[in-house]
Amino acid sequence: MKISFNPIGVIHTQFKEKTGVPIQPRFSSSGGTVEIAPEYAEGLRDLEDFSYIILIFCFHESKGYSLTVKPFLDEKERGVFATRAPNRPNMIGVSVVKLEKVEKNILHVSGVDMLDNTPILDIKPYVRDFDSFGDAKQGWLEGRIRGGHKSDNRFG
Amino acid sequence: MKISFNPIGVIHTQFKEKTGVPIQPRFSSSGGTVEIAPEYAEGLRDLEDFSYIILIFCFHESKGYSLTVKPFLDEKERGVFATRAPNRPNMIGVSVVKLEKVEKNILHVSGVDMLDNTPILDIKPYVRDFDSFGDAKQGWLEGRIRGGHKSDNRFG
Repeated sequence: MKISFNPIGVIHTQFKEKTGVPIQPRFSSSGGTVEIAPEYAEGLRDLEDFSYIILIFCFHESKGYSLTVKPFLDEKERGVFATRAPNRPNMIGVSVVKLEKVEKNILHVSGVDMLDNTPILDIKPYVRDFDSFGDAKQGWLEGRIRGGHKSDNRFG
Repeated sequence: MKISFNPIGVIHTQFKEKTGVPIQPRFSSSGGTVEIAPEYAEGLRDLEDFSYIILIFCFHESKGYSLTVKPFLDEKERGVFATRAPNRPNMIGVSVVKLEKVEKNILHVSGVDMLDNTPILDIKPYVRDFDSFGDAKQGWLEGRIRGGHKSDNRFG
C-alpha cells in the first residue's frame, strides 16, 4: 500500500547543505520561515496563540536507509527507530520549533534544524498536555545531549 | 510533487470505529500493539530503553478536509493546522504513546488513541531534551483539556 502526500509548503533556512545543521531544534538559535502554499493560509488561523508548533517534513536529501545507524551522539550502532536519523524507511522528520509570528501564509519560526527548502507535510500545534513528558527516560541518549551539537547528518 | 510512503506496520487497538476513540493518548488507558513488518524488526533495537515513543501514522479513515474545523473541545471554528483533527490536507497523525515492552517486531504500548489497523509510517524515540516543553502556551486549548474526553472524530 502506497500512501502519497503533497507538501503544503517549504521551510527556508540558512542551512544549504547537510554539514553544520544543528542536531535538533532545541540546540539551534537559527530562525527560518515556513512558507505555506497560499491556498492553505486559512488553515493557519489561531495557530499564533501557541508557543511551539510541530513540523512534519520530508528528509528530501535522504537517500536510502539502513536498519542500524551509528548516531552522531554515540559510538554504537543503534536501531534506526531508536534514533532521529534522516535515513529511515520512510524519510519523515518531526521537529518542535518555536513559533515567533504568523504573517498570512508565512510562519516565522526559531530553533530550526532543517535544510533549506525542506518540504513541509503538515503542521500541528504543540500541546503541552498531549506532548510534554518531562519525566521520560531517553535510553541511549541519556546524558549525551548538550547544547551546540552540529550534525554530520548522522544525528541522534 | 508527490511524496509516497509504504507503511512499516499497523497498530492493533480496541477502537473499531471512530466514535469513542480517546481524543489523545494522554487521556487513554487503552493498550495496543504495534506490529512492525518483520523485515524492519532490527530497526527497533535499543528502543525499549525509552519510556515513550512518537508514532507517525496515517488517518486512514479520514476523507477529505476543510481548512477550518470546529474541534470537539471547542465551540468555534479553528484553522485546521491549529488543531489535531484527522481531516487535514495530508492525513498524518502524530501521537506520543507509552512503550511498555518490545517483543521482536511487536511493540506493546499504552495510551493509545488510534483506530484499529491504523497504518504506521514511522516510529521515533521520544526524547525529553528535544520534545518536552512544559511551559508551552497552548492557545485555544488552554484550560479546555481534562481527562476522559472521547472523540466524535472532530477532536482538538
